[in-house]
Amino acid sequence: MTEPGTTPTTATVPPEQRAVEDALVAEVVASFDGTPDPRLRTVMRSLTRHLHAFIRDVRLTEEEWNTAIEFLTAVGHITDDTRQEFILLSDVLGASMQTIAVNNRAYRSATEATVFGPFFVDDAPRIPLGGDIAGGAVGEPCWVEGTVTDIDGEPVPGARIEVWECDEDGHYDVQYADGRVGGRAHLYTDAEGRYRFWGLTPVPYPIPHDGPVGALLAAVRRSPMRASHLHFMVAAENLRTLVTHIFVAGDDLLARDSVFGVKDSLVKDFVRQPADSPTPGGRDLGGIAWSRVRFDIVLAPAGI
Amino acid sequence: MTEPGTTPTTATVPPEQRAVEDALVAEVVASFDGTPDPRLRTVMRSLTRHLHAFIRDVRLTEEEWNTAIEFLTAVGHITDDTRQEFILLSDVLGASMQTIAVNNRAYRSATEATVFGPFFVDDAPRIPLGGDIAGGAVGEPCWVEGTVTDIDGEPVPGARIEVWECDEDGHYDVQYADGRVGGRAHLYTDAEGRYRFWGLTPVPYPIPHDGPVGALLAAVRRSPMRASHLHFMVAAENLRTLVTHIFVAGDDLLARDSVFGVKDSLVKDFVRQPADSPTPGGRDLGGIAWSRVRFDIVLAPAGI
Ligand SMILES: [Fe+2]
Ligand SMILES: [Fe+2]
Repeated sequence: MTEPGTTPTTATVPPEQRAVEDALVAEVVASFDGTPDPRLRTVMRSLTRHLHAFIRDVRLTEEEWNTAIEFLTAVGHITDDTRQEFILLSDVLGASMQTIAVNNRAYRSATEATVFGPFFVDDAPRIPLGGDIAGGAVGEPCWVEGTVTDIDGEPVPGARIEVWECDEDGHYDVQYADGRVGGRAHLYTDAEGRYRFWGLTPVPYPIPHDGPVGALLAAVRRSPMRASHLHFMVAAENLRTLVTHIFVAGDDLLARDSVFGVKDSLVKDFVRQPADSPTPGGRDLGGIAWSRVRFDIVLAPAGI
Repeated sequence: MTEPGTTPTTATVPPEQRAVEDALVAEVVASFDGTPDPRLRTVMRSLTRHLHAFIRDVRLTEEEWNTAIEFLTAVGHITDDTRQEFILLSDVLGASMQTIAVNNRAYRSATEATVFGPFFVDDAPRIPLGGDIAGGAVGEPCWVEGTVTDIDGEPVPGARIEVWECDEDGHYDVQYADGRVGGRAHLYTDAEGRYRFWGLTPVPYPIPHDGPVGALLAAVRRSPMRASHLHFMVAAENLRTLVTHIFVAGDDLLARDSVFGVKDSLVKDFVRQPADSPTPGGRDLGGIAWSRVRFDIVLAPAGI
């Protein structure tokens, strides 16, 4: 390893001890030689090398190893059908975002991807164009509209758009005790690749921090807060599926999002509209303020 | 990274993409800058670097990331008070043994350490010198004796010796359905640093392989079998606590132990004794064969 800040401890290891540690790495790597699937073989060999390099670089103590086992056990035990603490852990270590980066190379004008997060569920109701995703979720109404095109600017009709977000209290519906559905839906672009719907103006929220990942964040003095955002997943035939968010321009949290999800190109102007101003489709909001945002989505070709 | 076999994929990444990935690593590393505990800061920064290097080296796909999340979730869910699948995982990846290596440098004549394993419990009964650890565990009797000394050859009186092993069916007592205790005990060396007890002749056994770690071993065509062994943990004031095993000379499995625990210096002659041969202390074994082994233990100074 040649990483600044991690070499000094390893560098002080005497050569005979280093040889013992090297030999163990080689033995474990070789134990995967008989793996029939070449990809699994590659992944396990690389995992072994990096895991051992970490242990050796920090000269991990046996007490720290125990702490790590207990930590992972706690992460496993809090995880259930609606709470995915391993995804949170991957998120706060930037591992989710790095996986996104590796698999979604910047490609010409294609919209950038960001983290999926732990709150998506795949049975969200379908709404018509111009419909409302709020359902059982409470918050300030937000009109969202835009187009889906390919990188040549050709409209993509019939693209499936999944949207999901938290309510004004920062909760996704899967966190509700009563199981009601809200703040999520799917819809399809029209023949000209256009979409539009009523959502909620995004608000900041903390990732669940009452578990081991929250304890880790507290120990390293990191905030669990996520910058305000609205989730999108957009899929269409022969195009690369896009998982992304849009963020709110001016949000204080843009520079310290707890899961490293912010990209400049995804920060959008959510324009506040005064109470009683005319609404798209003439929807009666009962005289409250609302916001609107435009998000034009460009999908890369599949398989790039 | 300069590891053969993992560099080619990373090497083909275009510079602008590499810059994006580098920037993310730097951002995550910097997120730990405010960690008050300098050791935790070092560990988290190094973990971040190695975890991201792994993801980038193998160009981890989103599907593989999902598989990893599901695998860790399954490891968490099978883990309980008596089944520790995270320790098994660490063991089969050689991470446990590497941690042992880092913390137990070869030191002059000191006895070498090996993996702790998942089957120790700290409430094992005390037995007198010459007593029997078998309890509710069935197997061929084995007389074990030796000394505990420091590296100058001085006897260590009152050293606490924990011993534990599986029965003839390859099960540790924590795996018994009825909760009975057997195959484990602790005892203390006498004034001359000597110890002796009746155990069971070690037999090979598979690590628990009906869970996700077993599925991983099957996928990489590795056997779950451990070379036959008897566990020791030896502690005495001002000396380095030793966690180790002794292995059985001639065992086929010595070269392919599933957790990489074998060291040549720990392989001992277990000498078979014919039925009806005289036994230490004149114990009546009912006319069956037994074995005997000598294991002289040398403890390093504490804090080296
Ligand atoms: Fe979110
Ligand atoms: Fe064992």
